[in-house]
Amino acid sequence: MLTLITKDQFLNHWQGHRLLTRKVIETFPEKELFEFSIGGMRTFAQMVSELLAIAAPGAKGLATDIWEELDEKDRSGNSKERLLELWDKSTDEINLYWPQISDNRFQEELLAFGQYKDKGFCTLLYFIDNEIHHRGQGYVYLRALNIEPPAFWERQL
Amino acid sequence: MLTLITKDQFLNHWQGHRLLTRKVIETFPEKELFEFSIGGMRTFAQMVSELLAIAAPGAKGLATDIWEELDEKDRSGNSKERLLELWDKSTDEINLYWPQISDNRFQEELLAFGQYKDKGFCTLLYFIDNEIHHRGQGYVYLRALNIEPPAFWERQL
Repeated sequence: MLTLITKDQFLNHWQGHRLLTRKVIETFPEKELFEFSIGGMRTFAQMVSELLAIAAPGAKGLATDIWEELDEKDRSGNSKERLLELWDKSTDEINLYWPQISDNRFQEELLAFGQYKDKGFCTLLYFIDNEIHHRGQGYVYLRALNIEPPAFWERQL
Repeated sequence: MLTLITKDQFLNHWQGHRLLTRKVIETFPEKELFEFSIGGMRTFAQMVSELLAIAAPGAKGLATDIWEELDEKDRSGNSKERLLELWDKSTDEINLYWPQISDNRFQEELLAFGQYKDKGFCTLLYFIDNEIHHRGQGYVYLRALNIEPPAFWERQL
């Protein structure tokens, strides 16, 4: 069996998506980031707070099996700049924990955040897919606000 | 290097997401599936037609390196039932082509649809991520229509 995807490629894939999400946060006007919503859904900032609750704590959990409690509280104080700082801090933390994740962890069954039982690769893909899902919703918010979102394939700096 | 994800697991991941998208198609009232949109975006049926243009032709391309031209024309004739039939036909075609994809194809550079240069695993992840992205947009449409979408983690029959 050859390697379909390496561990480094997996990290790059994740961080590439996170870079695009960062651009989407930047594209929102500050007011709408914290106030605009459709159909009773959360604001994009609230969705981002969920993503922040998962990303770095998730990487830590994969690396150490120490799972923090999911804490989706928005700590930005309605500041876009602060939300982006929190995002960048998560980026660094993921990069820090990543080398500590053992190769066999991806096929191991684990209990993410003490409650979600699945194999490591499924858990990681769930983190990424959940981000893509909510970011896609952010795109609709931007379109409804008549703002052009970044291209979906732009995952580089 | 251990295997982070096997080829079978990759297929199951993809088809699991496709099953959830199928549920989202089913959840739309037929009229709104073909008519409703927000912010000048496409209808969900039009997005689904893009996904259909990519999925089975994409699996065929990965397996054979024969790439059809991207054809996103909606062939359902505004029938939800027909759209679901096209979806199920794609599901079968993907399952048919999958065993013909060689293991080393995932790390090979290829020109998907004759125009998108990337490694095989990136191309495949792009297919999946693009579907998650648009399905997330379908969720907003459903919420705006005051309809409860299926749970994001429901990827089983």
